[in-house]
Amino acid sequence: MTKTIIGVMGPGDGASQKDINLAYKLGKFVANQNWTLLTGGRNKGVMDAASKGAKESGGLTIGILPDSDKRNCSKFVDIPVCTGMGSARNNINILSSDVVIACGSGAGTTSEIMMALKAQKPLILLAASPKLIDFITEMNYPLPARAQTADQAIQIAKTII
Amino acid sequence: MTKTIIGVMGPGDGASQKDINLAYKLGKFVANQNWTLLTGGRNKGVMDAASKGAKESGGLTIGILPDSDKRNCSKFVDIPVCTGMGSARNNINILSSDVVIACGSGAGTTSEIMMALKAQKPLILLAASPKLIDFITEMNYPLPARAQTADQAIQIAKTII
Amino acid sequence: MTKTIIGVMGPGDGASQKDINLAYKLGKFVANQNWTLLTGGRNKGVMDAASKGAKESGGLTIGILPDSDKRNCSKFVDIPVCTGMGSARNNINILSSDVVIACGSGAGTTSEIMMALKAQKPLILLAASPKLIDFITEMNYPLPARAQTADQAIQIAKTII
Amino acid sequence: MTKTIIGVMGPGDGASQKDINLAYKLGKFVANQNWTLLTGGRNKGVMDAASKGAKESGGLTIGILPDSDKRNCSKFVDIPVCTGMGSARNNINILSSDVVIACGSGAGTTSEIMMALKAQKPLILLAASPKLIDFITEMNYPLPARAQTADQAIQIAKTII
Repeated sequence: MTKTIIGVMGPGDGASQKDINLAYKLGKFVANQNWTLLTGGRNKGVMDAASKGAKESGGLTIGILPDSDKRNCSKFVDIPVCTGMGSARNNINILSSDVVIACGSGAGTTSEIMMALKAQKPLILLAASPKLIDFITEMNYPLPARAQTADQAIQIAKTII
Repeated sequence: MTKTIIGVMGPGDGASQKDINLAYKLGKFVANQNWTLLTGGRNKGVMDAASKGAKESGGLTIGILPDSDKRNCSKFVDIPVCTGMGSARNNINILSSDVVIACGSGAGTTSEIMMALKAQKPLILLAASPKLIDFITEMNYPLPARAQTADQAIQIAKTII
Repeated sequence: MTKTIIGVMGPGDGASQKDINLAYKLGKFVANQNWTLLTGGRNKGVMDAASKGAKESGGLTIGILPDSDKRNCSKFVDIPVCTGMGSARNNINILSSDVVIACGSGAGTTSEIMMALKAQKPLILLAASPKLIDFITEMNYPLPARAQTADQAIQIAKTII
Repeated sequence: MTKTIIGVMGPGDGASQKDINLAYKLGKFVANQNWTLLTGGRNKGVMDAASKGAKESGGLTIGILPDSDKRNCSKFVDIPVCTGMGSARNNINILSSDVVIACGSGAGTTSEIMMALKAQKPLILLAASPKLIDFITEMNYPLPARAQTADQAIQIAKTII
């Protein structure tokens, strides 16, 4: 009876315009599927854009914040979870998502990709760097699914949910 | 734009029937106020009963689980947050609640009461043990609000929100 | 082959002079037993005094800090563990100690006492408030050991180790 | 007055024989410098081998365990810190190290490399995959130092400490 939670992981300050556009679409599409969006909750970059997209399509948005209060929470987050534990909260993002979609490749996001591999969570890399794919291919983990567009990522997620 | 979150803290296995009845009513009343309910998320005691009450009144329920998966999640929780960090997640319960209502007095619940005092969160003790009140009165913290019924607790919360 | 770790839990800013004197002696006696001292690591109150006592007797001191850096670490801590997770680190203090000695009764310390009860850790309450004892007596947990002097606490710890 | 802490991060089960040999040497050399070794604490792979090397050279070893008890702790760890928080403890490994040396490239280790980049910790990649270097080069972070031998890694660490 719990809701289906799609985690969209991506950079805050370091997000590119392309990442932000993809995240916004992802948020919209997640909401259109009637899924709940989970992000890192901050008012920046991919977290903010995905939450905005989801809210504009009437979705429900969860933000797992690194901070102990809501000061830097995205205004598009319905449910801020204040962890007060900094980057250690990245693991909560992963464990709480039914499917993880990584959008962009900052250090925080890549740590989340790695934690998803470790926890064997369904993982979709959206518009990922070929160099990251090359590196993961070397590792002893099943290669995660890859998508080039937000729509493709959602189609893959639908096969998993 | 974030939702108002009321944290209801109470025992799992060790909950008394009185705690469970109070928690169920609290859940109903929280939902009736259009507030979001946050609990420790497990399928036991106060957490389960409060979530049940809220769902039966059409509310939204968040569960901050100690576990890394949803196996022991209450079926009345909409949004399970899987922390994988055991009792350390108690601090997240407190930091994420706009108002904390403590219902019952197991060790976990009392640790949450103490963390709420420490974090200076608005805190309401519902049907608390007089011995706990005596002890807190000795400490150097403002005495938390006290209520004897679920309705009183909600009335106090309304003056805070 | 791991070292025996004695956790001394107590207030920082809110510590009384009596708490501080007891903590200093505890630290000395822990070191004299060739045990390792674990505290919350801050440069205040019980944490600082216990670490000072242990260092002056040639002991080894661990500090599990709430912060993400060493800025507020006691200068008597050999090994600062920077958790960056605030009060959630209290649970690590408990899980990492072979025996927990609580010295003083602030909110943080009481949360640690409660987590020790929950985790069923050997726990000694030193010069505890009778009101706290009264409250714990009501709960469904085995009553922890109690001591009035640092020496008594160590004698009890020796029967556990 | 706190000790200098060198964090050696590397795989447990997935460690290669080469990783294990490098880790053992790293542990020895860390101890020879009179530095304290910090690892993830488990009785496997790089964590176990580095701790063994350090103990055989008379060093002090800290293990930041993902578990809530010592059952799977390396027998070469002096101070087990039981976090009970799974992979979220990776962030504590990074925050607590004065210098981080990554030895091997499993998912957990790579998450630690990413958290070190994020926290701007001095970071040395030992015998790292060229594909990982290629990927990091793309990111907006200063490129970490690289070494091919344990001795080189220690020489670099000496310039930082």
